[in-house]
Amino acid sequence: MAELIGNLLVAQSGGPTSVINASIAGVITEAGHHEGIEEIYGGLNGILGILNEDLIDLGDEKRSAIAGLKVTPGAALGTCRYKINFEKQPEAAARDFDRLFQVFEAHQIRYFFYAGGNDSQDTAHKIHLEAVKRGYEMRVMGVPKTIDNDLPKTDHCPGYGSVIKYNAATVLEIGLDVCSMATDDGSCCVIEVMGRAAGWIAAGTVLAQQGDPARPPHIVLMPEIPLDEAAFVEKVRTTVAAQKYCVVVVGEGVRNAAGQELGADKTRLDAFGHPVLSGAAEALSEIVSRQLNLRTRTVKLGYAQRAAAHFASQTDADEAYSCGTAAVQAALEGKSGLMPKLVRVSSNPYKCAIEFEDLANIANVEHLVPREWISEDGMMPNEKFVEYAAPLIVGEVKAPIVNGLPTYTVLGKSPVEKKLPART
Amino acid sequence: MAELIGNLLVAQSGGPTSVINASIAGVITEAGHHEGIEEIYGGLNGILGILNEDLIDLGDEKRSAIAGLKVTPGAALGTCRYKINFEKQPEAAARDFDRLFQVFEAHQIRYFFYAGGNDSQDTAHKIHLEAVKRGYEMRVMGVPKTIDNDLPKTDHCPGYGSVIKYNAATVLEIGLDVCSMATDDGSCCVIEVMGRAAGWIAAGTVLAQQGDPARPPHIVLMPEIPLDEAAFVEKVRTTVAAQKYCVVVVGEGVRNAAGQELGADKTRLDAFGHPVLSGAAEALSEIVSRQLNLRTRTVKLGYAQRAAAHFASQTDADEAYSCGTAAVQAALEGKSGLMPKLVRVSSNPYKCAIEFEDLANIANVEHLVPREWISEDGMMPNEKFVEYAAPLIVGEVKAPIVNGLPTYTVLGKSPVEKKLPART
Repeated sequence: MAELIGNLLVAQSGGPTSVINASIAGVITEAGHHEGIEEIYGGLNGILGILNEDLIDLGDEKRSAIAGLKVTPGAALGTCRYKINFEKQPEAAARDFDRLFQVFEAHQIRYFFYAGGNDSQDTAHKIHLEAVKRGYEMRVMGVPKTIDNDLPKTDHCPGYGSVIKYNAATVLEIGLDVCSMATDDGSCCVIEVMGRAAGWIAAGTVLAQQGDPARPPHIVLMPEIPLDEAAFVEKVRTTVAAQKYCVVVVGEGVRNAAGQELGADKTRLDAFGHPVLSGAAEALSEIVSRQLNLRTRTVKLGYAQRAAAHFASQTDADEAYSCGTAAVQAALEGKSGLMPKLVRVSSNPYKCAIEFEDLANIANVEHLVPREWISEDGMMPNEKFVEYAAPLIVGEVKAPIVNGLPTYTVLGKSPVEKKLPART
Repeated sequence: MAELIGNLLVAQSGGPTSVINASIAGVITEAGHHEGIEEIYGGLNGILGILNEDLIDLGDEKRSAIAGLKVTPGAALGTCRYKINFEKQPEAAARDFDRLFQVFEAHQIRYFFYAGGNDSQDTAHKIHLEAVKRGYEMRVMGVPKTIDNDLPKTDHCPGYGSVIKYNAATVLEIGLDVCSMATDDGSCCVIEVMGRAAGWIAAGTVLAQQGDPARPPHIVLMPEIPLDEAAFVEKVRTTVAAQKYCVVVVGEGVRNAAGQELGADKTRLDAFGHPVLSGAAEALSEIVSRQLNLRTRTVKLGYAQRAAAHFASQTDADEAYSCGTAAVQAALEGKSGLMPKLVRVSSNPYKCAIEFEDLANIANVEHLVPREWISEDGMMPNEKFVEYAAPLIVGEVKAPIVNGLPTYTVLGKSPVEKKLPART
């Protein structure tokens, strides 16, 4: 394989995670070790910024800034939800692709890395295929990233370990709070976490039990299992009868038996007649407080959970970084159209190897929590899940702290001179 | 002053904080150094448990457990919201007081410490007065505790520094996330924090700016200032125009111009005709998304913020502990009916002394954020507030971490033998 000489472009897409920047740091650092890669560019706001030729020169960043990316949440290059839609808008997609390859060619991009989840891997895959079709020599690698943990073929996704570490700590801490408030009246708290289709994030909070199933969370509702409202209310009732309190975790996408998201109950209308979409936790809280007359509070962690780098998993950050370096190494070996994946060698001691998967097998496939990892009543992950998830949260990322708060890196973002007319 | 020999009883009341147990650790540790104090008892679930004679022997706890209290959130002794209501239910209150003093006498309680906020200090004050009236020799001390920071006479309250440290870190992290998602469409996130009457908690998130007023939070809404909806929407609009994103922090108790809590808008009814009380953040999110057609997400930190010992302030924990030890020392010197308070000596370098305040001056007085510490537009704390709050979040409490999660202390709770008939 002849050495391919040219520039590297890396970009990020989709919802950020606590460690998506660690992957970028891996790409940049590894790329810096190889002479075949001349300039290292970042695309701002994913594909959208590349279409606009908004590139920055990552070679101009301070070494300390690149190191700082390893502990900085959010997507330092910016991200987007823009999707090149071949199926529904083939003409617009064709125009986008012409433009993308004009940008690649104008800037001599020979290595392209795209960090993201399902949609982003799909985009990376299509760019790879298009490069082959056009005979434009470029090596394209997807870099896995998603808190949702729903990519197929990989044991887990970088970003997942950190979100469940923070969420489990939060459930553990809220559990102590609610427990201490539990007097004879009883007390209930419903905590909403992310996860629209897959219950991986909700399931991860079971680690808060630290091995004692009597401890919170007492109920974990995952989108894979439609809510059985009567069984749920009965489990809250028996938990409160036994323990005087109950901590419920719900994935935001949990649906009722009719297949409707709990948080999008169209029967709840505001004064203007619009449906009130206040979320799954609020909906469950209303069910519990109405049916059991129980003081119930809600927590909705929202973006906090995927940005909580102050308590991110070092295991996760290390793997995110390694996926970035592995992608660069594979591209330099001549590979393209692949994504690094984590392959578990053993759980105890925990060991994962990095292998590669064809992007064709990743794109647009959603990996859900297996039914056999969930208790019979459907309201708690079981010991198989715990064995899987426990190693992923080990170790604490140490962001530098000044005056009591983490100091995170903001890139200088020195722009690369534009060579093309503005996108029309 | 003759030495008073007898037993000590300590209890906790009201909503827990990340450091309320540190105060208890201070009381227990200091009490162990003095021979006048024979047994050290804990009352379970505050006054309610004492009425039920539910006492535990803290002398039976392991030394490591008492040390563990310094880093454990929640109220390790349990808490209650039970209030002895002299004004409205004088007969029931009189019965409660007879019973309380029966319990004190039966267990030779000569030192009584009650950790809590406004209501709890009121209770401690009344117990002190009643002891004097009954000629029952007992030294009663309040121990300050509240995330709300609304106790008068003290510079700040133990519990406050930790909640704003965690909340500021969270706003900082969410800010990076939302910023990285901000493309041309713009993006907004509304974060709801605690604080029903006082805006101290909301105000504290200004520290996330780390000195740069262009950074999040861009808007902080405090209950002290009624919402000017038009001015608020305009500020979101101009922030998004300038920065492409906007992070709003709202105290849960913020009211509209009509004096109605945003989160309790009675015009929003569900299918059963009940008002939908989903909180201030949801209400603001609806306002923003409707009037500016802006993608808006919400976060409701709820109990997570007051239990987040994994990122608590060491300064706060140290002060909480010191308030406990100071209360014991003062009681041993013969004082009663007082509460330790923090008196600021200087902000830079930060130095606080502990003095004492008569409980009569604490009970039922609410201390709000001064108007002159808030910007002219009423939507941001100013530099005077920052100077006040910044030192309170310095230092990180280090809970021991095993397998990626903090290990918190659960007391053994060895019961003290009951000596009275059950409460009727």
